[in-house]
Amino acid sequence: MPSRLVTVAPDTRPAMYEAMTRAVIAGGATLVDTADAEGLIWADPARPDTFPDVIAATTRLEWIQLPYAGIEPFAHHLDDRWTWTCGKGVYAPAVAEMTLAMILSGQKHLYGYARASSWSGPVGRMLAGSRVAILGGGGITSHLIPLLAPFKCDVTVVRRSDQPFPGANRTIPVARLHEVLPLTDVLVLALALTNETIGIISAAELTALPRHAWLVNVARGGHVVTDDLVTALAAGSIAGAALDVTDPEPLPDGHPLWSATNCLITPHIANTPEMGLELLEPFVAENVRRFCASDELLAPVNVTLGY
Amino acid sequence: MPSRLVTVAPDTRPAMYEAMTRAVIAGGATLVDTADAEGLIWADPARPDTFPDVIAATTRLEWIQLPYAGIEPFAHHLDDRWTWTCGKGVYAPAVAEMTLAMILSGQKHLYGYARASSWSGPVGRMLAGSRVAILGGGGITSHLIPLLAPFKCDVTVVRRSDQPFPGANRTIPVARLHEVLPLTDVLVLALALTNETIGIISAAELTALPRHAWLVNVARGGHVVTDDLVTALAAGSIAGAALDVTDPEPLPDGHPLWSATNCLITPHIANTPEMGLELLEPFVAENVRRFCASDELLAPVNVTLGY
Repeated sequence: MPSRLVTVAPDTRPAMYEAMTRAVIAGGATLVDTADAEGLIWADPARPDTFPDVIAATTRLEWIQLPYAGIEPFAHHLDDRWTWTCGKGVYAPAVAEMTLAMILSGQKHLYGYARASSWSGPVGRMLAGSRVAILGGGGITSHLIPLLAPFKCDVTVVRRSDQPFPGANRTIPVARLHEVLPLTDVLVLALALTNETIGIISAAELTALPRHAWLVNVARGGHVVTDDLVTALAAGSIAGAALDVTDPEPLPDGHPLWSATNCLITPHIANTPEMGLELLEPFVAENVRRFCASDELLAPVNVTLGY
Repeated sequence: MPSRLVTVAPDTRPAMYEAMTRAVIAGGATLVDTADAEGLIWADPARPDTFPDVIAATTRLEWIQLPYAGIEPFAHHLDDRWTWTCGKGVYAPAVAEMTLAMILSGQKHLYGYARASSWSGPVGRMLAGSRVAILGGGGITSHLIPLLAPFKCDVTVVRRSDQPFPGANRTIPVARLHEVLPLTDVLVLALALTNETIGIISAAELTALPRHAWLVNVARGGHVVTDDLVTALAAGSIAGAALDVTDPEPLPDGHPLWSATNCLITPHIANTPEMGLELLEPFVAENVRRFCASDELLAPVNVTLGY
């Protein structure tokens, strides 16, 4: 297999720079300076401002690997002189782990016990055999379903199409969401935020859930009408909510969700930088291998569509 | 299959009485009054005091099913005129769920976020691929390993014998515990408390663990030297501890573990009454079925040994 010449830049974030350097070598490329590079691995999501200078130093660049799924900071640099790839789908395993952690924290009342400073009584139910409805049929869902498998949950995937989702007990189109809600013990939001899905969970949906149900949101805060959720939690019309995302976000100090006794909030950290690097490194190594072998690259960016 | 005559007593705990009644019927027996019963399902673990009166009313009793694994409250009633069975192993699925919940709460810092009232920064690591050492080779371990399977953890079971534990990557005798500790990300205690295992985790073991390691105890508080754990948590020589059991237990108000920022305490509720009934009902139904069919009963109590 012929080697190719790949660079890593910028070097402003040491842990990431080192991980990406390891990935270039693991993928079988030769690590070179920017001037000689055929491939560029971008190694600091927080520094898109340095992009023009790095690019100006290149002479024979063909491929740019961006670090995250969301490429908004680089959108105005997109240019079809080069092939672009990103981190789409790379972080779904981390988000799926967080989703199960949040589900179990709710079922076992750990969020409540964590706040206690005194021995108290038994609260909690079995996850095994529970009815889990997952809104969204993307990477998070495909990584979550295997984690739920040993619990023998009854899993309903609610998605745009009704094409059966692998591993789900049934797949239902979004239009039939209200049929599913009353039969749901745990409702997981793992869908993309679009005009159609903004506020998809409002008072009507929360009321339709059983009183013992939990809402877990690892998608975007805008899927949930926050005021309606505050009302539902206060009224006990659902048992609780675990939110990695909120609207507004960051959730301001003093917001009623902070003081709800049945709400667990994590600050949009389902994928932490530490976890992300662990997942990104083998992914980039694989894309480097493909670049060297002239195979199809993973997670291509459509320059015209901008994602 | 011939039916047998089975009674449920006492009726002091309605939810349990009803569940056990359903189990008798599901198992194919005929539900009768105590006077006619060949089998007795004990339906209130908190009322062993009523046992002599119930027994006095029986005339043709052969079999007594006790509700929990620990039969201490009935120990002085044990009598080989009857066949005794208990709830040994029934609750392991609940404890295994709690164990995974606690592991994930540690890895994802949920215990910390639950205490926050303000948006904060990213903390957390992947459970996938972690090295999990489980002390004990009983029912909890056999139920926990399948829950860990989709995370592709590297699982070491540490037990009295070195007989390979199904599903573990390796099985090590307790004498070699110290070889395992430095290579452990999560240490789970799921063993029985005996003279040999009291204080098995003390300063030496906690120091041998990596600084990022978590301790999860779902066995008995006495396995851990509490003062040594308090010291290790304060010094950061391990990352944290999740304890469903403590020594002393209940943990008194004001105990330093309550205020440790890296300690999650649950009040010995891995198996709540609600969860327990869900598991006990099908188990008792199966034992009733076996009683009717004269098959070997599950979870027999050895009257001589007293357990």
